[in-house]
Amino acid sequence: MSSALKIGVAGLGTVGVGVIKVLTENAYTISARAGREIRVTAVSARDRSKARGVVLDGLTWYDNAMDLAADDNVDVVVELIGGSDGIAKNLVEAVLASSTHVVTANKALIAHHGLNLARSAEEAGASLAYEAAVAGGIPIIKALREGLAANTIQGVHGILNGTCNYILSSMTDSGRSFDAVLAEATDLGYAELDPSFDVDGIDAAHKLAILASVAFGTEVDFDSVYVEGIRHVSPVDIHFARELGYGIKLLGVAKRRKDGIEQRVHPCMVPVDAPINHVSGVFNGIVVDGDFVDATIYEGRGAGEGPTASAVIADIIDIARNSQVPTFGVATADLKPSRTVPMSDHVGPYYVRLTVIDKPGVFADVAACLKSNNVSMGSVLQHSRDPGEPVAVVLTLHETEERAMVMTLTEIEALELVVEPPVMIRIEEFH
Amino acid sequence: MSSALKIGVAGLGTVGVGVIKVLTENAYTISARAGREIRVTAVSARDRSKARGVVLDGLTWYDNAMDLAADDNVDVVVELIGGSDGIAKNLVEAVLASSTHVVTANKALIAHHGLNLARSAEEAGASLAYEAAVAGGIPIIKALREGLAANTIQGVHGILNGTCNYILSSMTDSGRSFDAVLAEATDLGYAELDPSFDVDGIDAAHKLAILASVAFGTEVDFDSVYVEGIRHVSPVDIHFARELGYGIKLLGVAKRRKDGIEQRVHPCMVPVDAPINHVSGVFNGIVVDGDFVDATIYEGRGAGEGPTASAVIADIIDIARNSQVPTFGVATADLKPSRTVPMSDHVGPYYVRLTVIDKPGVFADVAACLKSNNVSMGSVLQHSRDPGEPVAVVLTLHETEERAMVMTLTEIEALELVVEPPVMIRIEEFH
Repeated sequence: MSSALKIGVAGLGTVGVGVIKVLTENAYTISARAGREIRVTAVSARDRSKARGVVLDGLTWYDNAMDLAADDNVDVVVELIGGSDGIAKNLVEAVLASSTHVVTANKALIAHHGLNLARSAEEAGASLAYEAAVAGGIPIIKALREGLAANTIQGVHGILNGTCNYILSSMTDSGRSFDAVLAEATDLGYAELDPSFDVDGIDAAHKLAILASVAFGTEVDFDSVYVEGIRHVSPVDIHFARELGYGIKLLGVAKRRKDGIEQRVHPCMVPVDAPINHVSGVFNGIVVDGDFVDATIYEGRGAGEGPTASAVIADIIDIARNSQVPTFGVATADLKPSRTVPMSDHVGPYYVRLTVIDKPGVFADVAACLKSNNVSMGSVLQHSRDPGEPVAVVLTLHETEERAMVMTLTEIEALELVVEPPVMIRIEEFH
Repeated sequence: MSSALKIGVAGLGTVGVGVIKVLTENAYTISARAGREIRVTAVSARDRSKARGVVLDGLTWYDNAMDLAADDNVDVVVELIGGSDGIAKNLVEAVLASSTHVVTANKALIAHHGLNLARSAEEAGASLAYEAAVAGGIPIIKALREGLAANTIQGVHGILNGTCNYILSSMTDSGRSFDAVLAEATDLGYAELDPSFDVDGIDAAHKLAILASVAFGTEVDFDSVYVEGIRHVSPVDIHFARELGYGIKLLGVAKRRKDGIEQRVHPCMVPVDAPINHVSGVFNGIVVDGDFVDATIYEGRGAGEGPTASAVIADIIDIARNSQVPTFGVATADLKPSRTVPMSDHVGPYYVRLTVIDKPGVFADVAACLKSNNVSMGSVLQHSRDPGEPVAVVLTLHETEERAMVMTLTEIEALELVVEPPVMIRIEEFH
């Protein structure tokens, strides 16, 4: 057996502690699989005195994480500080510059700076591994970069944020509002005190940008991801969706098109019997469409101490075995520039809910807006009729270009008898 | 870019042709991911004149597959002949003996001779790769050996045979009999003319033995797998299962216990809302329980030209990248002897259907049999009552040792008013 692989851990929050715990508890199995011992030799965190439930005796302690980059007794630095810039970025750059391997769970860092960091890793002959950055314990990066490597990937879509999926699942089960369920999720620790990164879709967008790059062999391009969160999803829309045979999920969708790739995160109506609709609570789920393998589906916990540590250590074991795969699946020189199709070019079916005064003529006015934009209607739902009062009218629209849909909704909103801004949710008819 | 990796393909059936097709169509992407060109240089099959829809010009043709082992212009032999012994085994042994890598889709070969072949591969410093042998296009071997390598695996269960899953799904949807659906499956090409390998559970057992070895780090031990097929599953049991909140699936289950491992393939009742119950038709699905990652789930096509070729080529790309993982995840010297718990020691809930003459006293007799074996009843279902006529009585039984269950059923079968052998189906309460 070769000499031990020496690990430096930057950041001793939940995941950092988890990594040390798993490496200790499963030491025998892990070293058998890695072909050598994996030993944490150094750690860095802000507060040395904090009780963490793991033994740190004998490890080199650095108050400043940057010192890990200069430690000759470290073969791999695990970056668990977080954030797309600042110390996390400086550390990873310095570590790669010293030809030391990096394992990170930092989705923001990879989504924003992945291409440059991948170039640095390549020049240094070091690994830049980030399985833990996407979908926690699900080995999806490995599946895409290696397991499905024979395929031209046509698309990837999935539930990439457990907080949003918990909230939407809970709203669906209980009929409660977004605000009520968010408050509960915060109490349960499923949502951060500032939940905007999650519920506004940013976190899912980071992960989607990374998945798209690996899937399509394109330069990671977070800035082009269309992002819409779940704050505007209401119980009434969940109710109507169910009536139409759909569930509502926050999805990240990346699709290959002739004119580029679509990258978008937004609430979607998906058929109730689609596999992705069965992924509930804090679980993540990802569907990959390959040209020869067809659809393969991956589900598991997207966050938490154990699952994230599991992914971090899988990356470490790969390094221990000298198994090195290019950061985004191919050499950076082979990555194609990302050509993201603008959201206005998206084509798909739509759900629209209008609040109208139920007077004669209102429907003719709405129909005229649809017609003038060449938008074709699939179905209409209208339940109670209380003449003269506001009433919900639900439309589904056949495949339409987003551009035409937006214009239609602007025109509809301007109608006198339409009393609230229309609600629009995209439909994905996954087979 | 390094020099091309040269491939010899033994067997030009569906999968062999698929491998050549995918390597041709996705040549650019595959070589970018592999870091070098992958080029088929030699092939072997029985009938040279057969039209196969792929161009074989310029390739060395061998009538005898064994000649591939001696071809210096081949770096990797892809064995697609099939069968646990005979030419497939001889070829793989000869190839490994010449320190050439092997990629195979042959589950029978690995299930029966995996340990010895792994030792040969290890001595030769060659890869023996078999992703395509288990669950077709789903990269489950990679997930277990690498993606989840930080975990002690507690259990693996799954739908490992698409033919059986198609038959059971179709019986569930249509209410038709096993024989009727099998005939249809044969017409559609989903079942072989001799379907026994599939419907009697052997194929699933091959795959389960391989999964268990990789999951638990034990010597592959096909002979100890308990195997029961689906021929005795009837529409009436599917109907009662549904009434009790279960679906019926042919599962392979491998579980770690204190006293060894369980390895069993048999029809199971699973909760209708369990993820595995949503895997329908010819799809495969596998659930892996790791101590830190918790449950992760994998679904996809388990067979067919494209999916199987996808898995074969993923293995080839790993070899092209010099990424070498021990055959069963750890060095053969580290594999533990398999201690398979006998089926009589299995503990779980059970479904039992009795056909009894509905006369006073019959139920007291049945209850006495349960009591004398200390078997505790969960529920009873009995629909129509036509005194003096045979009627179905369905029992569910709480956690019971299989040994006690078998004795109970023997006693029940001997009762005068019980007119048919009892039907027993095991229940798995997957969370």
